[in-house]
Amino acid sequence: MAEGPDAPRPAEVADPPYYAVVFVSARNGEDEAGYAATHARMLELVAGIPGYLGVDSARDADGLGITVAYFRDRPAIAAWRRHPEHRAAQRAGRQLWYDAYHMHIARVERAYRHDRAAGPVRDA
Amino acid sequence: MAEGPDAPRPAEVADPPYYAVVFVSARNGEDEAGYAATHARMLELVAGIPGYLGVDSARDADGLGITVAYFRDRPAIAAWRRHPEHRAAQRAGRQLWYDAYHMHIARVERAYRHDRAAGPVRDA
Repeated sequence: MAEGPDAPRPAEVADPPYYAVVFVSARNGEDEAGYAATHARMLELVAGIPGYLGVDSARDADGLGITVAYFRDRPAIAAWRRHPEHRAAQRAGRQLWYDAYHMHIARVERAYRHDRAAGPVRDA
Repeated sequence: MAEGPDAPRPAEVADPPYYAVVFVSARNGEDEAGYAATHARMLELVAGIPGYLGVDSARDADGLGITVAYFRDRPAIAAWRRHPEHRAAQRAGRQLWYDAYHMHIARVERAYRHDRAAGPVRDA
């Protein structure tokens, strides 16, 4: 587990409303190198989409992964879905990497946060 | 990585609209046994809340965790937030287990899924 300044932190997102794209996937365990490279590339690419606000991503040792990408609005999500390199990755995901995935597109109405150093802050 | 019938699967949730509570946390690495026991107990307890629809949870090797709990509506979320045993766990989380957490309460407007066996299904 990482400690100190390189420890992972939840993504910093502006106040609501904004959108969250929750992507829950079950990996099949095949082609780990290809999967990891594409996952890293997608995190890089999505950061260039206008209206992108941040991302959180975790994969459990048992193979279940959750990635939550935050966007200003639905048009920003649509732009990301249509990105040609992302579309190719979506196809590869279905063909090669995932036994199953579910995606939930949701409008964030409220947000809360806690930081040990700062104490609780109720955002919105 | 689990394979076969015990492999993890994304939660099965009814068609939108419904709500997602996205809880993103950075563990501090302390008290792993106490944390794990409480996490398991909370997953058991939330399943008894009227309007609970399911949960997905993953924690990365680097300590970032994402749990997404799905509920029928905001009153169901409020009931879960107010549950006495859950409130005690929230306090313990702030005091003992988390460097930081962010929570996003979001109304799911659309959902998609893919299952390798069944082919893609567009839910809503």
